[in-house]
Amino acid sequence: MQLYSYFRSSAAYRVRIALALKGVAFEYVPVHLVKGEQRDDRYRAVNLQSLVPALIDEGRIFTQSLAIIEYLEERYPNPRLLPDAPAERARVRSIALSIACEIHPLDNLRVLQYLVRTLGVSEEAKNVWYRHWIDLGLSALESQLASDRATGTFCHGETPSLADICLVPQLANARRYNISLDAYPTLTRIDSSCRALDAFAVAAPERQPDAA
Amino acid sequence: MQLYSYFRSSAAYRVRIALALKGVAFEYVPVHLVKGEQRDDRYRAVNLQSLVPALIDEGRIFTQSLAIIEYLEERYPNPRLLPDAPAERARVRSIALSIACEIHPLDNLRVLQYLVRTLGVSEEAKNVWYRHWIDLGLSALESQLASDRATGTFCHGETPSLADICLVPQLANARRYNISLDAYPTLTRIDSSCRALDAFAVAAPERQPDAA
Repeated sequence: MQLYSYFRSSAAYRVRIALALKGVAFEYVPVHLVKGEQRDDRYRAVNLQSLVPALIDEGRIFTQSLAIIEYLEERYPNPRLLPDAPAERARVRSIALSIACEIHPLDNLRVLQYLVRTLGVSEEAKNVWYRHWIDLGLSALESQLASDRATGTFCHGETPSLADICLVPQLANARRYNISLDAYPTLTRIDSSCRALDAFAVAAPERQPDAA
Repeated sequence: MQLYSYFRSSAAYRVRIALALKGVAFEYVPVHLVKGEQRDDRYRAVNLQSLVPALIDEGRIFTQSLAIIEYLEERYPNPRLLPDAPAERARVRSIALSIACEIHPLDNLRVLQYLVRTLGVSEEAKNVWYRHWIDLGLSALESQLASDRATGTFCHGETPSLADICLVPQLANARRYNISLDAYPTLTRIDSSCRALDAFAVAAPERQPDAA
């Protein structure tokens, strides 16, 4: 199994956590996003979307982090990253998607580059944009998790799930941009519980072979 | 079952198609996004994220369109919206997510409002932004689907799936912004096949009770 990854990509970070939780060995293939290697023909032969991560398993190529993780969940069911009951699975997926669809896409590298290079937005306004979408998304998530008895040590109960896999990389991004997380005590408590686990620790950006 | 929806929301449109394909009856509850009703306390009691759609089933609230559709898939398995084999399920989910995570979030109403109201971007530059993300995403998707034998009458084989459920509302948005779809013959062929089906037709924005 091969994972095309960039150490700072939070979508790749999600898949690294899932692989580590499931104990699946893989070869790490770096794709340098800031140098633009994702747009080279070599990588476009793997993923026409020019996005990381991509996973190769048994000669097949898989793209989109959440689709990859659902695939891993079906192929390597233990430990489970989704609960059993449909309503609970929906809760976990909804938390994951509220990060993957509402926060992360707006703060993606290529979006920030478009703001600056094409729209001529100042560095300061770009940073305000970055914080705006993180704060909007995390505020809603904090209220949601703090008020729901289904929240436990982790986003859902007492074992890490797909929701935590999305939360931890998003908070790492927020920290990298020096965004205060004081308003999110539930999220930071869960984040700490996660990062105390080996699987989350080995998947962290600074532990990857291509870390700057 | 109740669906909180806005006729033009493409995330709500996805869920309407899934409900129609599965033949599940529901009550339609309109939330007027342009009037800002999603931020009223009445709706925030349903969904703290102030986003449509939300689905209420057996007294439980479900949010995030893809999580809702996966829930419906598990609760009402027929007809299937995902294939059986893990690798094929991953393909369908990846197509769906490449729309839901890479195109739609950037062209969401609240993002366009931020560009204009907060960043002072001109109406013209806003429209260029809108087209840029749609073209970037659809170009990759066209190449991907056109070159893959797994593509059939629909995005995946001969029956509609979660991928088509995401594709059709995205193309409807593109048409509304007068974006030429000439460069996407595979996508528009699939879109026509879908829209010829009753389930896609009844879910269309102009058929909803709150259509302007």
